[in-house]
Amino acid sequence: MTTNETLVLDTAAQDLLFREARTANTFTDEPVTDEQIQAIYDLVKYAPTAFNQQPLRVVLVRSAESRARLVEQMADGNKAKTGTAPLVAILAADNEFHEELPTQLPHFPQAKDMFFSEREVREGSALFNGALQVGYFILGVRAAGLAAGPMTGFDAAGINKEFFGDGEHSVLAVVNIGKPGDDAWFPRSPRLAYDEVVTTV
Amino acid sequence: MTTNETLVLDTAAQDLLFREARTANTFTDEPVTDEQIQAIYDLVKYAPTAFNQQPLRVVLVRSAESRARLVEQMADGNKAKTGTAPLVAILAADNEFHEELPTQLPHFPQAKDMFFSEREVREGSALFNGALQVGYFILGVRAAGLAAGPMTGFDAAGINKEFFGDGEHSVLAVVNIGKPGDDAWFPRSPRLAYDEVVTTV
Repeated sequence: MTTNETLVLDTAAQDLLFREARTANTFTDEPVTDEQIQAIYDLVKYAPTAFNQQPLRVVLVRSAESRARLVEQMADGNKAKTGTAPLVAILAADNEFHEELPTQLPHFPQAKDMFFSEREVREGSALFNGALQVGYFILGVRAAGLAAGPMTGFDAAGINKEFFGDGEHSVLAVVNIGKPGDDAWFPRSPRLAYDEVVTTV
Repeated sequence: MTTNETLVLDTAAQDLLFREARTANTFTDEPVTDEQIQAIYDLVKYAPTAFNQQPLRVVLVRSAESRARLVEQMADGNKAKTGTAPLVAILAADNEFHEELPTQLPHFPQAKDMFFSEREVREGSALFNGALQVGYFILGVRAAGLAAGPMTGFDAAGINKEFFGDGEHSVLAVVNIGKPGDDAWFPRSPRLAYDEVVTTV
């Protein structure tokens, strides 16, 4: 596989995060620790969002009872791997993130009321910026030498009710996390070429 | 600033992508080349999305006439920096991304019709997965040793009409790109603590 020498990021890091990392469908039994998740969070928390909003919430599903409740909400094709991964994390957006802006955006605390007084606007912002944070989190999992298996096939209303229940959170993704196991992935699918994606005006 | 030694990613890469990189508001005059943008794309294209969909489209705004048309659509607080950055990229989602699934997801080409026959479903998927790709692209800019200045303050309908005009694309972000200039950023705002974001069940 060719390297990318125009970049400043070193080749090992390019491979770890992008070129050799893959979405895993099977995992070994090796546990994933809270210390690893904290290291991931304490790195990716610095990546940018609009108005420094931080809607992402992470629920680590560790008990057998919670795992069973989550598997129940997953699409059939995702149940087996969600049931057996070393760790499963629910990534959700807190639609009331704006309450934190006065402390998280100290140079512009009035953003809370100027831009986010309407629930519909907040939900759109939490979805977009929460999705940015989901992408950063997935790369953070890879930065920890682990494989991520992000999934969007689930009953979202069911997960929101089972795991939040306050009407204020919207699940964005469920991510299996661990060391890749046997036959962990499909052959890599193609990507669009540069000229199919990038145009100049 | 403390390093994060639980991670496999080396400290220089952690700093380059997350800890020392900042959202830039001013830039030097140094140009950003097409070769750099291609290097960024050819790295971040490998990051994961649902069903390997690739809704992200990038418009590099290089001509003075196009730059003026874009500045017109930006919020007042974003006009000056959008007008003077070495390069400005419009990042949008192609809501007709599903047409590419038969070639981009060769092991499951029927996903196109099974999941994405309804425009509303496609738009939601293009928004979420496009946002993931926006996050990856921002980190890719940093991987190239450049600073990104992502913005969401603009007239979205105006940009969609001016730069796409086919009713099939939705702008997600506009990103200034270059080497950081004088007084390029605000002091870093706080981030939520691990315990405010991560819970265990």
